[in-house]
Amino acid sequence: MAKYPKIPEATIRRLSNYLKCLEDLEAKGEKVASSSHLATICNVNAAQVRKDFAYFGEFGIRGMGYNIKELKDHIKEILGINREWRIAVIGIGNMGSALLVYKDFLKQNYRIVAAFDIDPSKVIGHISERMGRPVEILHIDRLKEVIEARKIEIGIITTPPQEAQKVADLLVEANIRGILNFSPAPIRTPEPVKSMNLFFTAALDNLVYHLTNN
Amino acid sequence: MAKYPKIPEATIRRLSNYLKCLEDLEAKGEKVASSSHLATICNVNAAQVRKDFAYFGEFGIRGMGYNIKELKDHIKEILGINREWRIAVIGIGNMGSALLVYKDFLKQNYRIVAAFDIDPSKVIGHISERMGRPVEILHIDRLKEVIEARKIEIGIITTPPQEAQKVADLLVEANIRGILNFSPAPIRTPEPVKSMNLFFTAALDNLVYHLTNN
Repeated sequence: MAKYPKIPEATIRRLSNYLKCLEDLEAKGEKVASSSHLATICNVNAAQVRKDFAYFGEFGIRGMGYNIKELKDHIKEILGINREWRIAVIGIGNMGSALLVYKDFLKQNYRIVAAFDIDPSKVIGHISERMGRPVEILHIDRLKEVIEARKIEIGIITTPPQEAQKVADLLVEANIRGILNFSPAPIRTPEPVKSMNLFFTAALDNLVYHLTNN
Repeated sequence: MAKYPKIPEATIRRLSNYLKCLEDLEAKGEKVASSSHLATICNVNAAQVRKDFAYFGEFGIRGMGYNIKELKDHIKEILGINREWRIAVIGIGNMGSALLVYKDFLKQNYRIVAAFDIDPSKVIGHISERMGRPVEILHIDRLKEVIEARKIEIGIITTPPQEAQKVADLLVEANIRGILNFSPAPIRTPEPVKSMNLFFTAALDNLVYHLTNN
């Protein structure tokens, strides 16, 4: 695939947001969007939209707006989501269960192909009762075997915080490429494994900053 | 409180991360941290740490490192989390239930004081069975009354996507100040209400970008 220059984190985040907005427009039957229209629905300014897209050369035709389908494909290629990514979720409590049925994953080529828990017998009833058991829940002991067999590249950790690093270590042993950690305990992984912590307090901190300072 | 210059979004996000790292250090009994130590455990570089703190004048004493307690207090003041924020969660399915017991909220002065659902009788059993019902779950019809009575400033939406904007409109009517939306449908709110969408696909997009391009 094409390689792009080093892009600021904030731009990467916005690309993902533009993609989401473009999908909403497409769902409404739209074919073309101007940068100012896209800016309005994505809640950024039009100059920012044009600046973000300028990292990747010329998108669209000046004065004509962007072809929504082409722009979506282009953003997907840049982000690397123009192919399927196979995912395992580890820890099937409330948060893990919520992810197993999160509607937007499939739309975006994110496919959860395995779910693990320390006590699958306990959670299976819970899952199947509430939403028809979308994936089989396996014992954590089978993590390495299943991750390799099912060619899983991404692990999502939704265990209690005290288990998060242990699970991360198991995932690294199983040759995972990336980890998204939803538990409130930060995890660390050795190169080249890429891990990200998603703390809900951080999202609230950001909101509160704007409530306090704007 | 003190006012600070306009700070880049990425810095605000990192401040929240530094705070989390400082809390982990404090829990281990540490009193002082150098910028390079903080950088290592927060997974950024030391120059970035110093640059981020420079937005707020001088922190710490050169060569002596930062006093962890003072630094924490300073960051909390900047972010506006040096006081309690009262929160309502709307939509008590798996995701809402996960937030009701999310361990880090209380540590950070985020207090969930109300939970709402369209069918509280259905969810109460689920919640109380699994975690002892930490807050009473009320019918959504009581939203406005309870938000005003309990002085709630932030609403967290964890409903199915097709309900998200309707709930956001109700929250705006109830004079909420800020909304964090966890449903995959983007919401919009009129000024001065501040709303943020937290899409899990965006977190995966970011991870995948780094797996693809690094």
